[in-house]
Amino acid sequence: MSVIQTDICVIGAGPVGLFAVFEAGLLKMRCHVVDALPAVGGQLTEIYPKKPIYDIPGFPHILAGDLVKNLEQQIAPFHPGFTLGERVDELQRQEDGSFIVSTSEGTRIACKAVAIAGGLGSFEPRKPVIPQLEAFEGRGIDYMVKDPEKYRGKRLVLAGGGDSALDWTIFLAEVASELSLVHRGSSFRGAPESADKVASLAAEGKINLVLNANVVEVHGREALEAVIVQPDKGESQAQAADYFIPLFGLVPKLGPIDQWGLELEKNALVVNTFDYSTNIPGVYAIGDINTYPGKLKLILCGFHEAALMAQSAYKLVYPDKKFTLKYTTVNGIQEL
Amino acid sequence: MSVIQTDICVIGAGPVGLFAVFEAGLLKMRCHVVDALPAVGGQLTEIYPKKPIYDIPGFPHILAGDLVKNLEQQIAPFHPGFTLGERVDELQRQEDGSFIVSTSEGTRIACKAVAIAGGLGSFEPRKPVIPQLEAFEGRGIDYMVKDPEKYRGKRLVLAGGGDSALDWTIFLAEVASELSLVHRGSSFRGAPESADKVASLAAEGKINLVLNANVVEVHGREALEAVIVQPDKGESQAQAADYFIPLFGLVPKLGPIDQWGLELEKNALVVNTFDYSTNIPGVYAIGDINTYPGKLKLILCGFHEAALMAQSAYKLVYPDKKFTLKYTTVNGIQEL
Repeated sequence: MSVIQTDICVIGAGPVGLFAVFEAGLLKMRCHVVDALPAVGGQLTEIYPKKPIYDIPGFPHILAGDLVKNLEQQIAPFHPGFTLGERVDELQRQEDGSFIVSTSEGTRIACKAVAIAGGLGSFEPRKPVIPQLEAFEGRGIDYMVKDPEKYRGKRLVLAGGGDSALDWTIFLAEVASELSLVHRGSSFRGAPESADKVASLAAEGKINLVLNANVVEVHGREALEAVIVQPDKGESQAQAADYFIPLFGLVPKLGPIDQWGLELEKNALVVNTFDYSTNIPGVYAIGDINTYPGKLKLILCGFHEAALMAQSAYKLVYPDKKFTLKYTTVNGIQEL
Repeated sequence: MSVIQTDICVIGAGPVGLFAVFEAGLLKMRCHVVDALPAVGGQLTEIYPKKPIYDIPGFPHILAGDLVKNLEQQIAPFHPGFTLGERVDELQRQEDGSFIVSTSEGTRIACKAVAIAGGLGSFEPRKPVIPQLEAFEGRGIDYMVKDPEKYRGKRLVLAGGGDSALDWTIFLAEVASELSLVHRGSSFRGAPESADKVASLAAEGKINLVLNANVVEVHGREALEAVIVQPDKGESQAQAADYFIPLFGLVPKLGPIDQWGLELEKNALVVNTFDYSTNIPGVYAIGDINTYPGKLKLILCGFHEAALMAQSAYKLVYPDKKFTLKYTTVNGIQEL
């Protein structure tokens, strides 16, 4: 596989990682952004896209998902590269001080600087406790929907009670040949309009909605063939299934980054406040993943950290150029 | 005059000073904001209200004036007090560690903490070099328009070629009995639509537009009575005037703050990056007025500094309470 060449490899496509692309772009540095999640936005997209945030300066309130959309638009002139749905595994420092970053899928990115904007770490799916579940991973068990087309004409069982379970139920109802949604409770935590839509789909017979029940077993030979659904009251039932997709949210894990020799304090990367660099020269940490005296885990603080990081990285990317700060009010922005 | 009581006295009503009110408000601290300019927004309002800014996170572009409006809306729930058009002159530290801040007009503000968000300092009008000009200050010479009603039915001469001169000419054309705009050039630096509007007003005979000319003398007995206008070509002419208002922009001056015993470096206030406090306990400096290793004079950096300042000031305002960071996505904001 060929190696992607860039100036800064940004690890994490949350708001701070996205804004790092902007600050780098103002200084004519290119970025490639890697995230284990299949979409940009980090927690804002995965956990609370429809929730308002009130403490982004200049927005009396903004939906988390809209902030992500705005940031995507803001960085568009700088044409960042993206590798999504792949976890960053390895960091190799080259003799000349540059880096090769490698992902779980073997993608390799060559860069002059690395900005870890990993939020609370890479998010991993919260897995239900079901015997043999992990044995079927990749053979009928998925924890996130990366490509809905994979499920066209298939028999699906989804589980969960949040927005993710509701939204994918609504979307995949049109794609799957059969779809069951199993939820351990009787009401949903997700958006009421989504819950209403799921109830209508069930009433119309387009999906099979099983409340107050859990998937307790998975069965199959080569691949998944059936799951066992156990209601709170009554007999358990087998349900034929090509795919079982438990959508129980995500849990943060620092992941392989903790093997890179970076100084850690309480699971966060220690940085200075001059340029938010770590103990490895050329590796920066910005946003919720870093720590320093006075640190606040606020998006707006990550924005500031991204700006100072970019100034410092500039010296690595353009060691011979002298930098002068230019204001966008005077010059606007130049596309890369 | 009675003393205004507040938790934090914010000096400077620019974007960073305004956002400091928000961060303080989230922590249930009240603010009183003082600015030498007659309106909030600092440079954004005075110098470039109609110019787009591109580097505010989450805004692909926003007019400076709109950012100010948004910030006003964002802090409205916290009901800050404002003293505008008065320069902060004195800082007195009380025995209990609290402060009395006094202004040029004698307003006094008692507070537990002081956040200097003074931008490039207090802005002072750029004065044209005209003999006797300063002798008529307060007696017919004004350098900024604080209260347009003052000029109702009066004969005005304005001078300048930027947005401020154009905007006030358009506004005051309806208020004054006679209005002349004198500009040393033949074209305007301000917004083209404003320049067009001024040209139409002149064509309609509603104002007297004098291009390629300067006001070179001011005359009067008790108060201003006339100015002498000297065109580049031709004879000088006397013009009767109750008020002469040169609008040649503002120049930053640190002002009386440099007498407060604060540590200075190149006209900026030295702070640490833990809480952006100065060498005087309880006095913080945020935004363009401060300096520290890595400092960038960006609005977004001032927002971060305001957030950390507020955390630290909380310990002064509520010494007995333990603080826990709450996210607005979970709790929204509570009005003060």
